Amino acid sequence: MGRYMQDELALATRNSGMPLEALRYDLTPLGLHYLLIHFDIPATDAATWQLRIEGLVSKPRAFTLAELQRMPASTVRVTMECAGNGRGQTSPRYPSMPWLEEGVSTAEWTGVSLSVLLKKIKIKESTQEIVFHGADRGIDRGIEHAFSRSLVPAEAMRDDVLVAYAMNGQPLLPQHGAPLRLVVPGWYGMASVKWLERIEAIDHAFEGVQQEGSYHFRAVAGEKGVPCTRMRVNCLMAPPGIPDYYGRRRPVDAGWVEILGRAWSGDAPIRRVEFAVDGVWQDVVLDASAGTHAWRRWTARWNAPRGAHELRCRATDETGAVQPLEPAWDVTGFGNNAAQRVEVLVR
Amino acid sequence: MGRYMQDELALATRNSGMPLEALRYDLTPLGLHYLLIHFDIPATDAATWQLRIEGLVSKPRAFTLAELQRMPASTVRVTMECAGNGRGQTSPRYPSMPWLEEGVSTAEWTGVSLSVLLKKIKIKESTQEIVFHGADRGIDRGIEHAFSRSLVPAEAMRDDVLVAYAMNGQPLLPQHGAPLRLVVPGWYGMASVKWLERIEAIDHAFEGVQQEGSYHFRAVAGEKGVPCTRMRVNCLMAPPGIPDYYGRRRPVDAGWVEILGRAWSGDAPIRRVEFAVDGVWQDVVLDASAGTHAWRRWTARWNAPRGAHELRCRATDETGAVQPLEPAWDVTGFGNNAAQRVEVLVR
Repeated sequence: MGRYMQDELALATRNSGMPLEALRYDLTPLGLHYLLIHFDIPATDAATWQLRIEGLVSKPRAFTLAELQRMPASTVRVTMECAGNGRGQTSPRYPSMPWLEEGVSTAEWTGVSLSVLLKKIKIKESTQEIVFHGADRGIDRGIEHAFSRSLVPAEAMRDDVLVAYAMNGQPLLPQHGAPLRLVVPGWYGMASVKWLERIEAIDHAFEGVQQEGSYHFRAVAGEKGVPCTRMRVNCLMAPPGIPDYYGRRRPVDAGWVEILGRAWSGDAPIRRVEFAVDGVWQDVVLDASAGTHAWRRWTARWNAPRGAHELRCRATDETGAVQPLEPAWDVTGFGNNAAQRVEVLVR
Repeated sequence: MGRYMQDELALATRNSGMPLEALRYDLTPLGLHYLLIHFDIPATDAATWQLRIEGLVSKPRAFTLAELQRMPASTVRVTMECAGNGRGQTSPRYPSMPWLEEGVSTAEWTGVSLSVLLKKIKIKESTQEIVFHGADRGIDRGIEHAFSRSLVPAEAMRDDVLVAYAMNGQPLLPQHGAPLRLVVPGWYGMASVKWLERIEAIDHAFEGVQQEGSYHFRAVAGEKGVPCTRMRVNCLMAPPGIPDYYGRRRPVDAGWVEILGRAWSGDAPIRRVEFAVDGVWQDVVLDASAGTHAWRRWTARWNAPRGAHELRCRATDETGAVQPLEPAWDVTGFGNNAAQRVEVLVR
């Protein structure tokens, strides 16, 4: 785990994480939202962009951005996490983006409810899946393709699934999918297809690379596996104290310290968050919910005694799911929600 | 060079680079501008922020953000590069942010000319240096300090050195120094102190960690060395073709390909850019200058034949300085402006 390849580093310098001190913000400021961009950011033009909806539909048609902006708008606050978050802490490690823990953020997305569009174009009953095609193209696992993902109709028809054109009240930035992207609250980020240019209703299970090849939990390479869908229960704290530039080990002044964190789950509301000092766990104070799909703020107070200490936190959701203390094994390093570990030196 | 430590990776996932396809934009969009943040992003409040100017001045005083915004505003387009850009390609490699080549961007900064403020508070003649103190605090090279840098008065009094409160027409984002930062056009990024809260005139050479300890070109560890100041001549191309997600080796279709890039130098205007295929160099077409401190766009056309090829580019500025083909040795990995290398597979 201690050494990383240059191809991993190249992904880490391109794709940006959310610095953990930004857990202080209810809404992640523009430019601090994590980014995982599989291929290159495409050159798009909002003025001429069209979203085509076709396949097993009675009224196939294309929508311009202006047409979508004239329809009733919805805004949803969404905590989004990369399915590969935490991969960089696993061993052996699959060759991909080596997130340590910073691949998560929260934004307010504004757009048209996908269900409104799907009702307009009338999906046929034979539809098994709805496929979302992005404009970004490249090679992954040896196959050239545009980034595409699918949802079953029941999931696609949820009111809070958006075709979004704004983020935190501003037009989408190029790197977040301008001018249009899908936003699927509660799911890992791969479902929220960026640079959305085509929606297609099909009568079978979509077998694209990013659907069937990648984004599955697999115990051994080559097995069918279980698809990554909703975000597993997780939480993070903003590390207390001040950083050391290289190494980022954190000196903390002795005495009372407030620890601030956020917890989230794509499956159910957060029920409980615990905070541990050197393996001794205690419950923290949870703030009120900030929305069905938004992370929940929590705080703990710690009377820090001098010396080296290990801080950890773990969340439990209403399904009873709780974060493991060590990463669960996964071939591709998906879904690592092991409890965070922060080393501090109290002085 | 092939393997990186976890502490380097942790810096790479925090600090974001500009993906090279963003060379297509004259102005780097918000959130794609490279970031090098030594310590944590401080929690600042624009409503109560004060910039104090003190030391060897006749009229020490503090300015609120609102006061600065009522003064005459200047806007300057600035290409800014991290002094450590390219460090990740050097060997042996100093333990710090392992930029490969993406630590450069261009923004339009708006604020008050620093010279206007310095004239108001009347610097005394005994002043040797002006020190700029940021609010970000941490440990580097074993010493706890706030990030601070200095300039000699002649440099500080340049009209285009700004105390900036806006970037690309919007209030500064937290990660870019909100609510106030210094912007020193032409210099490597470390001079443009973020979260600027205090300016101090002193009668000696400033010896802060980020002035005398770091940011020097040194052939051997421990020597005094030569300060990093203006950006060395450099250029980059947006790699053609499409990427492979892991490894990012680029297939390119055979036939005519347009190559687009940018060139810059902190010392003088760009005079020439050359583009090479497999070691054969040719001059490219330079666009008109976009401003004294902005990168200059260039294009080349290449009739790409099938097979594996190596593309390179290098710039020359009006001082006659030209980029080297291999990194110049520097203990700390600063100022690596070796000509970019892009491997493509034409199909």
